[in-house]
Amino acid sequence: MVKVGVAGYGIIGQRLADGVALQKDMELVGVADIAVTLSIRALKERGMPYDLYLVDGADRSQFDAAGIPCSGSFQDLIGKADIILDSSPGGTGAKNKVLYEKAGVNAVFQGGENNSVADVFFHGYANYEQGLGRKYLKLTSCNTTGLIRAVDCLDRLYGIERVAITIVRRVADPGDYHRGLTNALQMEKAPSHQALDLMTIMPHVEATGILVHTPVTHGHIITVLAHGKKGKITKEMALQAFMAHDRIRVVTIDEGFLGNASFFRYARDLGNPRGDMYEIGLWEDSIVESGDDIMFAINIPQESVAIPETIDAIRSSLKMQADSPSGTAETNKYLGLGKWKTVP
Amino acid sequence: MVKVGVAGYGIIGQRLADGVALQKDMELVGVADIAVTLSIRALKERGMPYDLYLVDGADRSQFDAAGIPCSGSFQDLIGKADIILDSSPGGTGAKNKVLYEKAGVNAVFQGGENNSVADVFFHGYANYEQGLGRKYLKLTSCNTTGLIRAVDCLDRLYGIERVAITIVRRVADPGDYHRGLTNALQMEKAPSHQALDLMTIMPHVEATGILVHTPVTHGHIITVLAHGKKGKITKEMALQAFMAHDRIRVVTIDEGFLGNASFFRYARDLGNPRGDMYEIGLWEDSIVESGDDIMFAINIPQESVAIPETIDAIRSSLKMQADSPSGTAETNKYLGLGKWKTVP
Amino acid sequence: MVKVGVAGYGIIGQRLADGVALQKDMELVGVADIAVTLSIRALKERGMPYDLYLVDGADRSQFDAAGIPCSGSFQDLIGKADIILDSSPGGTGAKNKVLYEKAGVNAVFQGGENNSVADVFFHGYANYEQGLGRKYLKLTSCNTTGLIRAVDCLDRLYGIERVAITIVRRVADPGDYHRGLTNALQMEKAPSHQALDLMTIMPHVEATGILVHTPVTHGHIITVLAHGKKGKITKEMALQAFMAHDRIRVVTIDEGFLGNASFFRYARDLGNPRGDMYEIGLWEDSIVESGDDIMFAINIPQESVAIPETIDAIRSSLKMQADSPSGTAETNKYLGLGKWKTVP
Amino acid sequence: MVKVGVAGYGIIGQRLADGVALQKDMELVGVADIAVTLSIRALKERGMPYDLYLVDGADRSQFDAAGIPCSGSFQDLIGKADIILDSSPGGTGAKNKVLYEKAGVNAVFQGGENNSVADVFFHGYANYEQGLGRKYLKLTSCNTTGLIRAVDCLDRLYGIERVAITIVRRVADPGDYHRGLTNALQMEKAPSHQALDLMTIMPHVEATGILVHTPVTHGHIITVLAHGKKGKITKEMALQAFMAHDRIRVVTIDEGFLGNASFFRYARDLGNPRGDMYEIGLWEDSIVESGDDIMFAINIPQESVAIPETIDAIRSSLKMQADSPSGTAETNKYLGLGKWKTVP
Repeated sequence: MVKVGVAGYGIIGQRLADGVALQKDMELVGVADIAVTLSIRALKERGMPYDLYLVDGADRSQFDAAGIPCSGSFQDLIGKADIILDSSPGGTGAKNKVLYEKAGVNAVFQGGENNSVADVFFHGYANYEQGLGRKYLKLTSCNTTGLIRAVDCLDRLYGIERVAITIVRRVADPGDYHRGLTNALQMEKAPSHQALDLMTIMPHVEATGILVHTPVTHGHIITVLAHGKKGKITKEMALQAFMAHDRIRVVTIDEGFLGNASFFRYARDLGNPRGDMYEIGLWEDSIVESGDDIMFAINIPQESVAIPETIDAIRSSLKMQADSPSGTAETNKYLGLGKWKTVP
Repeated sequence: MVKVGVAGYGIIGQRLADGVALQKDMELVGVADIAVTLSIRALKERGMPYDLYLVDGADRSQFDAAGIPCSGSFQDLIGKADIILDSSPGGTGAKNKVLYEKAGVNAVFQGGENNSVADVFFHGYANYEQGLGRKYLKLTSCNTTGLIRAVDCLDRLYGIERVAITIVRRVADPGDYHRGLTNALQMEKAPSHQALDLMTIMPHVEATGILVHTPVTHGHIITVLAHGKKGKITKEMALQAFMAHDRIRVVTIDEGFLGNASFFRYARDLGNPRGDMYEIGLWEDSIVESGDDIMFAINIPQESVAIPETIDAIRSSLKMQADSPSGTAETNKYLGLGKWKTVP
Repeated sequence: MVKVGVAGYGIIGQRLADGVALQKDMELVGVADIAVTLSIRALKERGMPYDLYLVDGADRSQFDAAGIPCSGSFQDLIGKADIILDSSPGGTGAKNKVLYEKAGVNAVFQGGENNSVADVFFHGYANYEQGLGRKYLKLTSCNTTGLIRAVDCLDRLYGIERVAITIVRRVADPGDYHRGLTNALQMEKAPSHQALDLMTIMPHVEATGILVHTPVTHGHIITVLAHGKKGKITKEMALQAFMAHDRIRVVTIDEGFLGNASFFRYARDLGNPRGDMYEIGLWEDSIVESGDDIMFAINIPQESVAIPETIDAIRSSLKMQADSPSGTAETNKYLGLGKWKTVP
Repeated sequence: MVKVGVAGYGIIGQRLADGVALQKDMELVGVADIAVTLSIRALKERGMPYDLYLVDGADRSQFDAAGIPCSGSFQDLIGKADIILDSSPGGTGAKNKVLYEKAGVNAVFQGGENNSVADVFFHGYANYEQGLGRKYLKLTSCNTTGLIRAVDCLDRLYGIERVAITIVRRVADPGDYHRGLTNALQMEKAPSHQALDLMTIMPHVEATGILVHTPVTHGHIITVLAHGKKGKITKEMALQAFMAHDRIRVVTIDEGFLGNASFFRYARDLGNPRGDMYEIGLWEDSIVESGDDIMFAINIPQESVAIPETIDAIRSSLKMQADSPSGTAETNKYLGLGKWKTVP
């Protein structure tokens, strides 16, 4: 049993903890945080399913006042773990790395950190093998994780030479008040970092793109225009590839998936914890051909999309499985991914 | 075991089904709907935990095509039930009533129906006793249900003579595309129907108010100015009453409850199905005194707030418990309401 | 002096009236409407700068009660005009056409009508010459009008073979309550009608695209990926073409044009009536190259963008100028377009 | 002719400049700013109707590069003025005051400054006389300015003892990207500062209230519950008072004023510069009676509402008119306020 700790129990950290807890070949040894946030209060109201450790700088008296039991320091947690999933705020991971190095523990960092913090910039499908046995991996951000899933899916089967993307980005998560946008679409300078990140992970693909922030909280939508390496990829070819992927849900508008909020609604109705969905959505009725290029739209559930690939990173870093197909399959099995296809 | 059927498996119907399924003294005999909606698709992907019956006009071939098993007609469901919770679209309930009368089955209608459909316009706390043994009850709407909880809570202890409310109304539910508002606050003619409805349920209280629609999806906020019958109600008196109520959560901004979306976030983090919360929220730091009046703000989780009172309606209509305290206590027990106060 | 009437004094009709009133070689003979809307109330408060005529079905007593003078019937207005700009609600234009035919008057219809209502589906730059002397023209919709401006601009200079677009569409206008979207991105089936419309106007170009509705009111943003006919179009080549166009404003994020709302803010600060802008915006820092393709983002001020091209349509239909360069130049002169480039 | 300078040419500063320019007994001697903002770019494109002076710390080369002529330093502007309207960012006004004191020039500060910066916290109707001849006045904020207009209007005629308000606050201005809220209603601790500010200006009134931020940009809506000093104020009495006020527009939903965005739409259609409205809106169909209290809803156009009262402050500080009725009447005359009532 691989022992996993989670640093930072926020939007991502909570989901990592829940995701790891579902892996039958892993043990969640605890989570660490610094303040009595709503998430920590919820952990307490749930009866402390995970042990809580306090990061340096935490005010223990605040936790005591709220009746929240603490199991020790962050260093204590590190001492119990084989690997730490670091989902602390951007920049903190780099500081924490000193502790990980000192303790000789592996770590997986989130997208907010600088690439230089890690040995490998990682994606469970696109470069699992490069992470094998490396101590420090960094995950792609939510948009990039979902985007690469779709591009890699086509690349494996048909070869991809070039992509041009338009990211219609959700600007905040549900419950955020510290950032937001009201009645405006906001531009970023092109090319978007997601296109650049894709090229880092998949250096054989040329990528560029434009990002527009929109005032919504449920899921990014990305349109992808892809150019095949070995000739035209038809709508049928693309569809076939997407439907076979365990982390892609192919849907249609006619089924009721009218937009990004439909995935959230559907995940809530499925009873998924937090209304989360691990899969990206892919609209069958968005797929069109443009000359020899193929164009389509995907939905990225920003809060949860990177959880499976982060768990893949544990498998790669600790060499639990030797390659992407076997590593991702194990993650998928415990998360129940792909299962919906076989519902009788 | 009381046998309960649910007509209309949408936003409210799904939650009623889940809520009834938690009551150990009730049996959910099935749900009925007319079309292959996202909610029905989710029911199927969950493995059909509830039997599905088809309403007249449903196209069976659509359900077959989607691989969704059907257990019979709506009339079949009615035949198996002691009481139907009718959460079909507004106006349909009145038509369904003919079927209920024919079958001699009791029914509870939702807020969208005309009051005349029912014998009693019902609220689990404010007039449980009036519903006892009556065949047809109609629930208050979401805003009114939550509002009455708070007003009744003060009324029981201190007597309330008059309230003036301002409803800051969420305009759509998460996942809605058929209604919405973009960058506008929309007025309704005063007095708001919620104030009038409150007076129907609590005829000894004078109520008026103004409603403003706002472009958000997570929870109404209502400010209430209440005038006591027996003298001034202080902040401390109000707080004491609210904190003792099992369907009211007293929170503060400092704890992290910054607004309506915080309740949604918290409920998701609690692991509540769909991120739902049955309780209304009440901000301790919103309570202020104005002359002899007391003023405060509450949060109404519109999708789920009326579920407990609807279950109370079953208890009242079928005389399962004799009065409001015992009926609501039973509902609360099975829904886990009030439990959070005793988390060690 | 060409005599122009405007049918339908709403969002578009008001702007057409104002735009025509600025043309020194045209006379606005009046506007027609059916009800006492806010726009009509504003016309009255402004002192009736335009004569108002009543459409069949209008209730004259409502206008009298509001103290709004009426100059006659819609037929009276038609009798005074050489051409009618029909901006009545979608579908009404087709009915009005019977009146135009009877009176032998020319007409220009808006994008909401079916193409079959007109002899020519028209754009001031892309096919001005096809409209020459034709009695009935139909304008492209707001998105298509702005999109074609940009594509035609490149096409004239470098030849365009293919475009793939992503439309990030504003869902309502400021002041709309009858439509709206709240916290959701909504998909439409691909290809978007704007791509199809572009091919109708520019049949030598292959076009496809995906449209996403967003909950904002100030301006659509479209990303365009264009493939040249005669070889690669570089960023510099594209920029040069765009900067020379009188209905395209090239801007940068660094100047303060952070998104769609910046154009609205800027137009308000310019003192433009209604905060309108006739030009599309084009972000210099959005232009990127993708293989041999060029990609860029434009901003479409939906309420006002089609006004210049509609005035071009008058010029074409009535053969006031013989070709697109001379026709559009005359429109631009009176609207002050291109002037900003020469502000000392 | 009173000479007026404006410090800070942003949202408020631009409108102050335009408002002062309309006063026939005042001369706008110039405006000052620190950076080449969109507003400054618009000033240039308009042909520099106002002379621009540079605040200490401004980078002159940036202005030169953008081709924007500068007329001197902020100190130069101060030297030419009898009074400065300081609409620089919150906190800057206090620093600027040193310059004003040194030059012996009067100043009017905006709501963002601390009260201590000024001799009098000022409102044109409620305490004009207290500002007479005082060197430093500070205006109430936008919400408070509009709120006091309505409360003072009733107070003058009938006496007001107590008010309880609910502020449904717009969270950003059109064109803002640096603040915003997405799909959330955000609470502030009660009582709101607007209630406290009202009591500072109108010390004979007891006020409290609750504020809720909403994700919209066009106008705050405030519900006011007021208790008369001399007995019940009926709906008719309130309506009569409001209709006679030159800075209050009484409207109805049936006329088309459906919400806050309708006022913006109407002002745009009126041809008001920037789509601004100086008047607060008051919905006749929102007025209801609650016991002996009167309740109603007002709309506050946040960008422009305080302009008239700021101009009143000039009149008071420089003793141009001796009392509120004569001072406000002069401001109203030049701004065209109240004129709409007499449109034939």
